[in-house]
Amino acid sequence: MAKKNAFYAQSGGVTAVINASACGVIETARKHKDKMGKVYAGRNGIIGALTEDLIDTSKESAKAIAALRYTPSGAFGSCRFKLKGLEESRAQYERLIEVFKAHNIGYFFYNGGGDSADTCLKVSQLSETLGYPIQAIHVPKTVDNDLPITDCCPGFGSVAKYIAVSTREASFDVASMAKTSTKVFVIEVMGRHAGWIAAAGGLASDETHDIPIVILFPEVKFDQEKFLAKVKDKVETFGYCTVVVSEGTKWPDGKFLAEAGSRDAFGHAQLGGAAPVVANMVKDSLGYKYHWAVADYLQRAARHIASKTDVEQAYALGQAAVELALKGRNSVMPAVTRVADKPYKWKVGVAELKDVANKEKFMPRNFITKDGFGITEKCRAYLAPLIKGEDYPPYKNGLPDYVKLKNVAVAKKLKEEFKV
Amino acid sequence: MAKKNAFYAQSGGVTAVINASACGVIETARKHKDKMGKVYAGRNGIIGALTEDLIDTSKESAKAIAALRYTPSGAFGSCRFKLKGLEESRAQYERLIEVFKAHNIGYFFYNGGGDSADTCLKVSQLSETLGYPIQAIHVPKTVDNDLPITDCCPGFGSVAKYIAVSTREASFDVASMAKTSTKVFVIEVMGRHAGWIAAAGGLASDETHDIPIVILFPEVKFDQEKFLAKVKDKVETFGYCTVVVSEGTKWPDGKFLAEAGSRDAFGHAQLGGAAPVVANMVKDSLGYKYHWAVADYLQRAARHIASKTDVEQAYALGQAAVELALKGRNSVMPAVTRVADKPYKWKVGVAELKDVANKEKFMPRNFITKDGFGITEKCRAYLAPLIKGEDYPPYKNGLPDYVKLKNVAVAKKLKEEFKV
Repeated sequence: MAKKNAFYAQSGGVTAVINASACGVIETARKHKDKMGKVYAGRNGIIGALTEDLIDTSKESAKAIAALRYTPSGAFGSCRFKLKGLEESRAQYERLIEVFKAHNIGYFFYNGGGDSADTCLKVSQLSETLGYPIQAIHVPKTVDNDLPITDCCPGFGSVAKYIAVSTREASFDVASMAKTSTKVFVIEVMGRHAGWIAAAGGLASDETHDIPIVILFPEVKFDQEKFLAKVKDKVETFGYCTVVVSEGTKWPDGKFLAEAGSRDAFGHAQLGGAAPVVANMVKDSLGYKYHWAVADYLQRAARHIASKTDVEQAYALGQAAVELALKGRNSVMPAVTRVADKPYKWKVGVAELKDVANKEKFMPRNFITKDGFGITEKCRAYLAPLIKGEDYPPYKNGLPDYVKLKNVAVAKKLKEEFKV
Repeated sequence: MAKKNAFYAQSGGVTAVINASACGVIETARKHKDKMGKVYAGRNGIIGALTEDLIDTSKESAKAIAALRYTPSGAFGSCRFKLKGLEESRAQYERLIEVFKAHNIGYFFYNGGGDSADTCLKVSQLSETLGYPIQAIHVPKTVDNDLPITDCCPGFGSVAKYIAVSTREASFDVASMAKTSTKVFVIEVMGRHAGWIAAAGGLASDETHDIPIVILFPEVKFDQEKFLAKVKDKVETFGYCTVVVSEGTKWPDGKFLAEAGSRDAFGHAQLGGAAPVVANMVKDSLGYKYHWAVADYLQRAARHIASKTDVEQAYALGQAAVELALKGRNSVMPAVTRVADKPYKWKVGVAELKDVANKEKFMPRNFITKDGFGITEKCRAYLAPLIKGEDYPPYKNGLPDYVKLKNVAVAKKLKEEFKV
């Protein structure tokens, strides 16, 4: 049993390109069948490992696996389930190792954000302690773009492109209507703590398309008076204004503009509804007619308008994860390293998991204009290449022909069930 | 002065393809320079005619006009401004004729929905009364798809495609998350009185993609108990559920699920926010975690995912309008006539404006399933061809390279100003 199998799981909120990473992992593993066994995927993420509910990806055709590259969402199911510290959640970590042992799994590929990088790190630490060798490699994924070290996170470029395109399109619409109707359009975007996605709305305006955009970042405490003055100025100058508001925008007292009150499994506040709050504020104070949109899942699922750069990076990092594993690396994460801005060049680098786990990367202050409502040239230079290129999925009857895998279960080997 | 100029204006809410109709009008007029003079566009719709604020489209290059075909929104500005009855608004109609006379305009192309078809009809009637001949041709446009006679309305196919694609993508997303997180996703779509757009959400599910979708139509009085039972059933069967709710969905007492209270210039209630109402209802009664989106302007501005069929029809009807005018027709509207479903065939027909004005086309009852929450095969056969084909705009730096016209004003000839 020298040849070990691999385990792959998707974690947290899915993206338009997380399956492209899965595609990179599985296709690369298949290319190295002499060194790596089967790739088992966790059904619904890490829960699939804990409950020994594994999916045998070898049952999928090459065509089906290739189709993952253009299929959004998590093909094996994801989950919001955070393993806590080694002491607190020791039984869960031990169960993981037990399942891995039972299925001769020597590689752990975990595709997620900061929380899962931490889980990945702990799995590799515990495997050392328990004397069962597991190479744990984290494949970065998060639309929030808030992981450290990597220049950007797969999933972000596509949501950025969606928001930039949508902001431009809606702005064109409002500009046409502004004379007698809507003057202010508000679009709410994702990004709990970091304003990367909101910043992408700023790309809608460029040297050939001068569009009045006001951005509300989570990094900038909301100043109602300054905001309304800004909107008024834009409307008086351009006739209309588009507001891009991050769901994470906060009042000076730290409360979210629209906090729903509930929290998810990771303890994060569940947000939504900042757009109507902002729109009503504009109407009440300035009297402008408004429209508002909340893109929500549409933005992160929008594979139809994915960034080609993003798709390529998502795939490349999945591929690199397997290659790193085959080189014997452990406790690492393949990362995007930017080589040059213009023309954009990048390569795959490697980050140590201890440097990645539980660290959030915020927008640098010099990416936000002094007034706090726009993006700087520095920010633009950073963002622009990430939305570049189109990578359309195939269509059938007018709709993207996304793949649904068979997801055949691997026979269980352990006697005990495990409750999560 | 035998050769008359033409006037073209955009009316009401703009769409992803109304400029494709403008492109059809202008390009066709340019092809017949021997018979038709310049095309003047109304700046901000009919208001441009009333205030003698005309745009000289002959100042635009052939390339710029061609680019209208792939540019969403109203390139000349639109407006929500309804001319009322001939008696009530006589001064306005007379002013229109006066402006047309001053600029040697003999053709009136009005690109809009039911209200503007009515205005168009009245202009042709008054021009007869006043003895100044105007050929008034209505070019249909409305995402609501509620005009009679024409098989479908330009603008609808693209919004239908956007909603079908987005519903499929978001459903893939929710399916991945449902095990531990979001189980119900609610997307709110446009359509005040007619459920055509909501129906398009149903296309996301087909023989190869079995997706649990519950649709709330304006045509079906909202039955909370039946709705919640339906959602519960879907979640228990599939693990998740997607709800497509029309902004026009009403309680049994006739009140909108989320009425904002304000009304637009046509006296229509301004809506928004049915999605959070529905989502909270699901959470409160069934306890399912939800996410919701309000697509709003994004859906009608989304030229990046326009339906090729829709773009072709929008262009063809603009072209036909000019051809009808040159044949001496008056008080008519070019319409889409469906010749066959499979394979889809259509041709341009002609409708009399008196049969079009102020009539709304609702979803036939046999397009909605008996339970009131889905679409029938009949509906599917009607909708499917309308979203067929992709017609991507050109991109520059990762963003659609939409055109912004110069919009050069025509020198005024009248002494009196006109207040609107």
